[in-house]
Amino acid sequence: MLHHLRTAAAGLLLAAALAAPAHAQTAAKTDSLNLRKIYDEALLRGQSYDNLRYLCQNIGPRLSGSPQAEQAVQWGKQTMEKLGFDRVYLQEVMVPHWVRGAKEKGSFKAPKGKAQNVALCALGGSVGTSGKLKAQVVEVRSWDELAKLPDAQVKGKFVFFNRPFDDKLIEPGGAYSGAVDQRGRGPVEAAKRGAVGALVRSMTSAKDDNPHTGTTRYDDKVTKIPAAALSTLAADRLSAELKQNPAVEFELEMACQTLPDVKSYNVVGEVKGSKYPNEIITVGGHLDSWDLAQGAHDDGTGCVQSMEALRLLLATGLRPERTVRAVLFINEENGNRGGIKYAELAKAAGEKHVAAIESDGGGFTPRGFGVEAASPATVAKVQQWAPLLAPYHAGDIAAGHGGTDIGPLKGQATALIGYDCDSQRYFDIHHTAADTFDKVHRRELELGGAGMASLIYLLSKYGL
Amino acid sequence: MLHHLRTAAAGLLLAAALAAPAHAQTAAKTDSLNLRKIYDEALLRGQSYDNLRYLCQNIGPRLSGSPQAEQAVQWGKQTMEKLGFDRVYLQEVMVPHWVRGAKEKGSFKAPKGKAQNVALCALGGSVGTSGKLKAQVVEVRSWDELAKLPDAQVKGKFVFFNRPFDDKLIEPGGAYSGAVDQRGRGPVEAAKRGAVGALVRSMTSAKDDNPHTGTTRYDDKVTKIPAAALSTLAADRLSAELKQNPAVEFELEMACQTLPDVKSYNVVGEVKGSKYPNEIITVGGHLDSWDLAQGAHDDGTGCVQSMEALRLLLATGLRPERTVRAVLFINEENGNRGGIKYAELAKAAGEKHVAAIESDGGGFTPRGFGVEAASPATVAKVQQWAPLLAPYHAGDIAAGHGGTDIGPLKGQATALIGYDCDSQRYFDIHHTAADTFDKVHRRELELGGAGMASLIYLLSKYGL
Repeated sequence: MLHHLRTAAAGLLLAAALAAPAHAQTAAKTDSLNLRKIYDEALLRGQSYDNLRYLCQNIGPRLSGSPQAEQAVQWGKQTMEKLGFDRVYLQEVMVPHWVRGAKEKGSFKAPKGKAQNVALCALGGSVGTSGKLKAQVVEVRSWDELAKLPDAQVKGKFVFFNRPFDDKLIEPGGAYSGAVDQRGRGPVEAAKRGAVGALVRSMTSAKDDNPHTGTTRYDDKVTKIPAAALSTLAADRLSAELKQNPAVEFELEMACQTLPDVKSYNVVGEVKGSKYPNEIITVGGHLDSWDLAQGAHDDGTGCVQSMEALRLLLATGLRPERTVRAVLFINEENGNRGGIKYAELAKAAGEKHVAAIESDGGGFTPRGFGVEAASPATVAKVQQWAPLLAPYHAGDIAAGHGGTDIGPLKGQATALIGYDCDSQRYFDIHHTAADTFDKVHRRELELGGAGMASLIYLLSKYGL
Repeated sequence: MLHHLRTAAAGLLLAAALAAPAHAQTAAKTDSLNLRKIYDEALLRGQSYDNLRYLCQNIGPRLSGSPQAEQAVQWGKQTMEKLGFDRVYLQEVMVPHWVRGAKEKGSFKAPKGKAQNVALCALGGSVGTSGKLKAQVVEVRSWDELAKLPDAQVKGKFVFFNRPFDDKLIEPGGAYSGAVDQRGRGPVEAAKRGAVGALVRSMTSAKDDNPHTGTTRYDDKVTKIPAAALSTLAADRLSAELKQNPAVEFELEMACQTLPDVKSYNVVGEVKGSKYPNEIITVGGHLDSWDLAQGAHDDGTGCVQSMEALRLLLATGLRPERTVRAVLFINEENGNRGGIKYAELAKAAGEKHVAAIESDGGGFTPRGFGVEAASPATVAKVQQWAPLLAPYHAGDIAAGHGGTDIGPLKGQATALIGYDCDSQRYFDIHHTAADTFDKVHRRELELGGAGMASLIYLLSKYGL
């Protein structure tokens, strides 16, 4: 019933401060007090949650190229303008325009059985079926299994990629990494062997009927075959049926298609550094979402936290010494054109990036940060600040991955930093219709924005 | 989209092991491998989630003295018997029997206004209103404010205790501790001043219409006045109305009452220690819940995790060297009779308790453990194991609070240990109708049981 109270983390911080020389003690004390200001502002007057509600509930799904993506761009710009950043602007970029279409269904049927509908959705980028596509199914769990199949067992069939998440892994992100190759490469590898379609088990350890979309990649030299994700329950049912009746037929109908590229934008809001205006810290999330989802945790949370991080610095009077930019990147989900464009423009302008921070792992309770840098000394420098962040449970700092949107800044930024939060629930809803605003918790979200603002405060004061 | 992968925690563990002498290195390696076995079993074949589903959905709310509490006792006993523990038994204990009754409603009305219904519920233990109780309201936020009110402003009125959670605090448990005195002492303090009823703001920082029940304590020397919790939204509305119209009248009708005590039971499952059978480690949660709730997070999770912790040790072949008992305590919510009885029986039998562990802060993602011990050396000993638990995000070990049920073992057990998990969502649902099974996440729950089993493994091997 009653939760334990902890003062130990604060005690650790104090001990660290006392072991340092006097000037460092003073600085650590100032920093500690300033972080507390940031958290107070976030927890008492944070705006992330209300901003996210609007994005999710008034704009909703916003796949690149959609009218909602355009609305989201305008919303992002207006929101940043209202926040009073020094400069708010758009970066034009052409983005892919894939549409799901109204028709999307599938079923399977054993030779003498009844047709069973399954929960599925087209993978992002998939071609449609041009009417109904009917074929037998061959199930595989590894590339090796596929390679060993005789041609006759693949040709003219659906290849069903059914390798599940490895549930033993503590980080669901690791399980995702261990399964997602099926979604990315499955359709191409199946087509190379003469398959007519690809069915992929949804990328989750949850057992339910939510199909998880996500991008698949074709190869221009290989026939493009339709590709769909089955819910995990549907995948289990199909797999069980195949064990009984290898001659099961699957019928797939999808009207998805790729239209010509569309003009879109990254949204950028900037606060000039008071001492080193030419040194830049970027903080961002991606504005686009999959078409099935409100894109709450993926990645509305990263967008609102990034804007909030700047707002927190201004509202607490902690104007950054280095220039800070909040960036709402477009097109992370199916192309990363926004991230690539941002890095190109930064390079062309000869900008010096101290760091880029991304929040794209959901808006759950903070843990810390993963630091991707050429030099281990850079990681160590960020780790020095762990005692300041530990009282807020955001002090878990280690070498790690930055993020997809900021990835193209590799080599241009001293460090790429991924905001890291609890992720047990993330892949249950990732890329599904269940990624909705109600899955986000106000305090968890605001704590994340405060953690990001705190790191930016330290980066902007001390550099890297 | 993609979550960062971390290997740093495992690296730390390795570094710690390498710095130690050879025999300690071997032991640390063995322990590390054994913890991995425990987690594998929990994540691949964990039974906590299915057990919890049954308890929540087939038995449901189970306040002490209710038929459902009796069903839960039988379920707990049968579940432990099926798990093949060495010995499963009940400990008889008389428990309070408070019933809410069918009628429970309230409204307020400004002199010329319309009556507005409010979401409320009786506080546990409250007397009823014997028909409708109608009176004016005086709002206070502190004991000091109440003390300074002239008698005429309190007498014959409802005292409305409306001090909110301090939202700045990082741990919601701290905010709870800072507000819950209003629920516990409010009605008595109001009655001492001649009030006819007490209204208490619900114990949460969530803004919604869920009233949160919870126990209040009368004093036999003071008139027992009816006491209800208002939802936070209702409290805000009433407060706003009072600012406009201090003459607002509140009407309360509640049919709750306290019936004679009922016979009930703690459920105990024991696995004998292979080397030190007379040294005991207790792990438990409380079986009773509030009548409004399924008691999922409070405290079904603690019950199923405690049974699971023992199951994990048996299933992985890590039979404990010291005796381990899983205890489902009865009556934590409104009396703690089960906890008191357990300690009494242990004392009477001259039992030596190495440690008692309690999980009663929800079944969310683990953090670690809070250790309550007479000697700081005991806390330090438990902290030595942090590197083993850190790869599972359960290595945050500090001085802290054990738990209500194990509290009476103070002085009899070397350490009282509280299982500590992420708690941002806990007080949103605590003691409300929203504390339901769907709020619990399978992996978060199973990770908690594995963390508890891991600590028990270490305690049973090394003692304290």
